[in-house]
Amino acid sequence: MAIVTLLTDFGLADTYVAQMKAAALAVAPSVRLVDLTHAVPAQDVRAGAFLLWTAVEPFPSGSVHLAVVDPGVGSERLAVAAQSVRGDFFVGPDNGLLVPALERLGGCAQAVSLTQSGFWRPRQSSTFHGRDIFAPVAAHLALGTPLSSLGEAVQLQRPFELIFTDGPVGEVIYVDSYGNLVTNLLAERLPERFTIQLGATRVPFVHYYADAQPGELIALVGSNGLLEVAARDGSAAAETGHGRGARVEVVRL
Amino acid sequence: MAIVTLLTDFGLADTYVAQMKAAALAVAPSVRLVDLTHAVPAQDVRAGAFLLWTAVEPFPSGSVHLAVVDPGVGSERLAVAAQSVRGDFFVGPDNGLLVPALERLGGCAQAVSLTQSGFWRPRQSSTFHGRDIFAPVAAHLALGTPLSSLGEAVQLQRPFELIFTDGPVGEVIYVDSYGNLVTNLLAERLPERFTIQLGATRVPFVHYYADAQPGELIALVGSNGLLEVAARDGSAAAETGHGRGARVEVVRL
Amino acid sequence: MAIVTLLTDFGLADTYVAQMKAAALAVAPSVRLVDLTHAVPAQDVRAGAFLLWTAVEPFPSGSVHLAVVDPGVGSERLAVAAQSVRGDFFVGPDNGLLVPALERLGGCAQAVSLTQSGFWRPRQSSTFHGRDIFAPVAAHLALGTPLSSLGEAVQLQRPFELIFTDGPVGEVIYVDSYGNLVTNLLAERLPERFTIQLGATRVPFVHYYADAQPGELIALVGSNGLLEVAARDGSAAAETGHGRGARVEVVRL
Repeated sequence: MAIVTLLTDFGLADTYVAQMKAAALAVAPSVRLVDLTHAVPAQDVRAGAFLLWTAVEPFPSGSVHLAVVDPGVGSERLAVAAQSVRGDFFVGPDNGLLVPALERLGGCAQAVSLTQSGFWRPRQSSTFHGRDIFAPVAAHLALGTPLSSLGEAVQLQRPFELIFTDGPVGEVIYVDSYGNLVTNLLAERLPERFTIQLGATRVPFVHYYADAQPGELIALVGSNGLLEVAARDGSAAAETGHGRGARVEVVRL
Repeated sequence: MAIVTLLTDFGLADTYVAQMKAAALAVAPSVRLVDLTHAVPAQDVRAGAFLLWTAVEPFPSGSVHLAVVDPGVGSERLAVAAQSVRGDFFVGPDNGLLVPALERLGGCAQAVSLTQSGFWRPRQSSTFHGRDIFAPVAAHLALGTPLSSLGEAVQLQRPFELIFTDGPVGEVIYVDSYGNLVTNLLAERLPERFTIQLGATRVPFVHYYADAQPGELIALVGSNGLLEVAARDGSAAAETGHGRGARVEVVRL
Repeated sequence: MAIVTLLTDFGLADTYVAQMKAAALAVAPSVRLVDLTHAVPAQDVRAGAFLLWTAVEPFPSGSVHLAVVDPGVGSERLAVAAQSVRGDFFVGPDNGLLVPALERLGGCAQAVSLTQSGFWRPRQSSTFHGRDIFAPVAAHLALGTPLSSLGEAVQLQRPFELIFTDGPVGEVIYVDSYGNLVTNLLAERLPERFTIQLGATRVPFVHYYADAQPGELIALVGSNGLLEVAARDGSAAAETGHGRGARVEVVRL
């Protein structure tokens, strides 16, 4: 039973996500659907790319990841599918959304432009490629359709980088729903003993939330392997006033 | 593997939806469950009917749609199941919720009042027919139980219409989570060149979001085939102050 | 196809829940995943325990319930798995979260501390036991791995009680997303005719929502078998200003 995951900025209040699932199930009735998130901030391709990057690693190789954060729908941006070196598939718009996740899985082995309309829904609306193109294509990939039969080989666009760095200077690239400030500093490249300078605030590094006092600002390694600034039992974003783009510096002790 | 979809106004914060799923799985362990939405505004049967209407078409014929927006639970409103001419099944309260979706799928071929309690959970609470009656009945339909065995034939109530119109005057019937103003004007019946009059505002018709400037108010055909007023990268509802019931007029050019 | 349910305080905006599902599917590809709720108030173990208690009964015996509300992650709290007398499995932190649900299903038949790391993901982060320990362990239980092979027998901690009482004095133990005030008063032990005293307000008992006027405060038996104070078409919490911990008294008529 192949896995198709879904990541969008559609929210769950309307039925857009359900319509995408319907379109996938109409092609591949036994596919397993897993929501990654549908709360990507509207049209925020960078946030979508980060969230996709966070999610794909634990899925079994060969999973199909369908991602739609697509401010350019209806313009000339390409619709694409790609395969990672590890063997996972990705389907979505060619706007940079898929690139960081592909790189996390070894890089992009192959990418195609979705031009073979025989794999789409018979009628397409101009505004909903998620349901009409991406979802049926993802389902066909889950059924074993070769990537190369979906369209012509292309190079994916790279309009931005999520630059994961070994410091000493990095930045906040995402604020999660707890208010944790997720940085682009890779934990495995940090020095043994250090603190973090975030604006005017010096933040101690700890190994566990339980090592901090309630409300205390701490830096620790998040579950994605990135350094995060958190407030125990609180929101670091609210406490510090910092958000995406804030400068973070690693200070050796 | 039969599909049972779920649409409610229960939200996802409590476990009501999960309890409905449990009751369905207890009857039909291999059924596939797909959420349509659980964010129907509380007890808003018309909004629920619209959202159900938006979602059902792409699902494979024979799917079972379980919908619960039920301000009259515990009163004398009937619990019903119905089959569309296309072959899809519907289960829910007899308050108009199911009617527009049935009509989208060719009309109602057959409807029954749910009176055969052998298809329900052994114990029923007075407030949670979703779990105790509708979910197990939907699961039985997914297993192939004939509709006629669930109760006596009835005519469904039609307490309201969602009147899809060919203009030139229509109205806003739904505001989606982006703030798009969805009208009851069917795109396929619109003239070739036109603008929209919404209150004091003249709104140009475009084919794609990408044709508009950020923030610009536009009218375009949404993925449901209905004319929508949208603000590129913004909320048309917030920008215009208009909502459900607002008058919309098609002005030929 | 075994069922694994998930209850967390992670929300659905980030991909934490999806990562847990990925870790479960990597172990048990055909397991069926059902979300109970991911909107437990952050780190509120008592609310999580109540919500888990509400959800488990309608699931088929033998289901695996994976629950993570875990303010002590990284501290010395144990990770545990347990089996109810009815035969259902539970996996989560040993902080009281699992106890009320186990009791609803006949009590705890057996519990173990999760120490056998062969059932975990190969690498563990210090902050995300949900993905790295609990999800794979739940998947192994769904595949039929004996509980006793996961670690050593333990007694579960009981740091709090959810005390379900037959009155006449009880308290509000949960406010649901409608603003209903859920009490710890078991309906089956209430007198035949009574009203409720909530602070300075006398609230009549009714059998159905439909028996009340819009906005009227009423007491009725909720779908969990507990007495609730509700406002028809409104929020009893907002109308009364009362919340968790509020005193409720049953007054015989």
